Amino acid sequence: MKKNIKKINAAILIIGNEILSGRTQDLNVSFIANWLNKKCGISLAEVRIVPDIEKKIIKNILELKRNFNYVFTTGGIGPTHDDITAKSLSKAFKVKYEYHKEAYSILEKYYGKIKFNDGRKKMAKMPRTSKLIYNPSSAAPGFKIKNIFCLPGVPSILQSMIVNCQKYLIKGKVKSSVSILLETVESNIAKELGRIQRKYFKDIDIGSYPFFRLGKIGVAIVLRSSNKSKLYLCKNDVKKMVIKKKIKMLKN
Amino acid sequence: MKKNIKKINAAILIIGNEILSGRTQDLNVSFIANWLNKKCGISLAEVRIVPDIEKKIIKNILELKRNFNYVFTTGGIGPTHDDITAKSLSKAFKVKYEYHKEAYSILEKYYGKIKFNDGRKKMAKMPRTSKLIYNPSSAAPGFKIKNIFCLPGVPSILQSMIVNCQKYLIKGKVKSSVSILLETVESNIAKELGRIQRKYFKDIDIGSYPFFRLGKIGVAIVLRSSNKSKLYLCKNDVKKMVIKKKIKMLKN
Repeated sequence: MKKNIKKINAAILIIGNEILSGRTQDLNVSFIANWLNKKCGISLAEVRIVPDIEKKIIKNILELKRNFNYVFTTGGIGPTHDDITAKSLSKAFKVKYEYHKEAYSILEKYYGKIKFNDGRKKMAKMPRTSKLIYNPSSAAPGFKIKNIFCLPGVPSILQSMIVNCQKYLIKGKVKSSVSILLETVESNIAKELGRIQRKYFKDIDIGSYPFFRLGKIGVAIVLRSSNKSKLYLCKNDVKKMVIKKKIKMLKN
Repeated sequence: MKKNIKKINAAILIIGNEILSGRTQDLNVSFIANWLNKKCGISLAEVRIVPDIEKKIIKNILELKRNFNYVFTTGGIGPTHDDITAKSLSKAFKVKYEYHKEAYSILEKYYGKIKFNDGRKKMAKMPRTSKLIYNPSSAAPGFKIKNIFCLPGVPSILQSMIVNCQKYLIKGKVKSSVSILLETVESNIAKELGRIQRKYFKDIDIGSYPFFRLGKIGVAIVLRSSNKSKLYLCKNDVKKMVIKKKIKMLKN
């Protein structure tokens, strides 16, 4: 990681018919979001899910690349016909789609010369100028080109690799968050919470999320900020409001 | 539901900082995708997740509205300050943001006149010309404006309401799907599967998804089509390939 700039954001582009068909439940957004927030101080600002269609991938990657500091793609870097992320990015940036020498040698060593068939070789093909994102669990590397990080779709593999993106990222200021769980309904606190949000609008994001848990109806108030002292003041204001309204606070 | 046109698509716009922060795992995409596919013959073609920021919501809703037959939004229709979906849509379409008479009366009846406070009243405010999507579980209705369906973010409430979108939708042809589970790795079948996909490229989407389950490494081949006879032929071609390559088929 490099220097510490204040606001850095990222987008995710999920490439995969299996998510859009409802067959597969995406788990990568919440994982990447937490990792970016907590480890890198980078906010996830947008996510898009698109099908395995070249022109859709190209259009969306170019838009996201322009609008955010970093873009993470998931899916479409395996050996089969529906894995078209690398080829699509080559077209998007008008660079050659070719074997990456080091990726080729990693995969050849992993599979052995005899078993290194065309499907496996395909996983070494990337846009020219790509840098590798090493994969400790199943060898086939992801790659970085410009501000875009291409990762696989299988959550366990993605999770094992993401740490290898760090060296390419500029870190932001990590936000802290505070959760306050109340035994109430949102509409009972909406007005007062709005007032508190207006008071702290510059420094703190206040979210309000209803939940049903262990037979109890409640609301989780979540405060997020990179300013710890303002966070403390804001938390106190929420607590005062809670006491004034005689609302029970729940423990986690 | 109305007449039966062949290809109808939809997009989802998830409005919610809690998904982007990684705090909440989205469950609505896979639910809506399955419902659209299986009950309505409508393909989910794109998903976007954006923060609770008015200009982002407006920009994305206008883009998705133009590019897809239907748009489903989730989140941001509750009583708190961060619920800004209805107001944002009013601005996007330059119509008044005002009390919907029937929604107001539903909510007033549900809460009783005394408990019907400002937060609760806010849930009856919608863009002028909105039609209601009734909510059997917690009263506060969603709404439809133009080709956009606004639903809440809480999965259990969304799931109880979605059936009430049906009357506004034109149904497409429902696709069938076949899954074939193989004890192999993708790179072992990539070439042959690509050949089968090229043979059926007009009628069938073939997806290939690696999995790790019960200690076994495998690949799920998923065939999707609205043409049942082609699906049957394609399935046979996959089975022939599997037998030829001496790959074990797994039971579900």
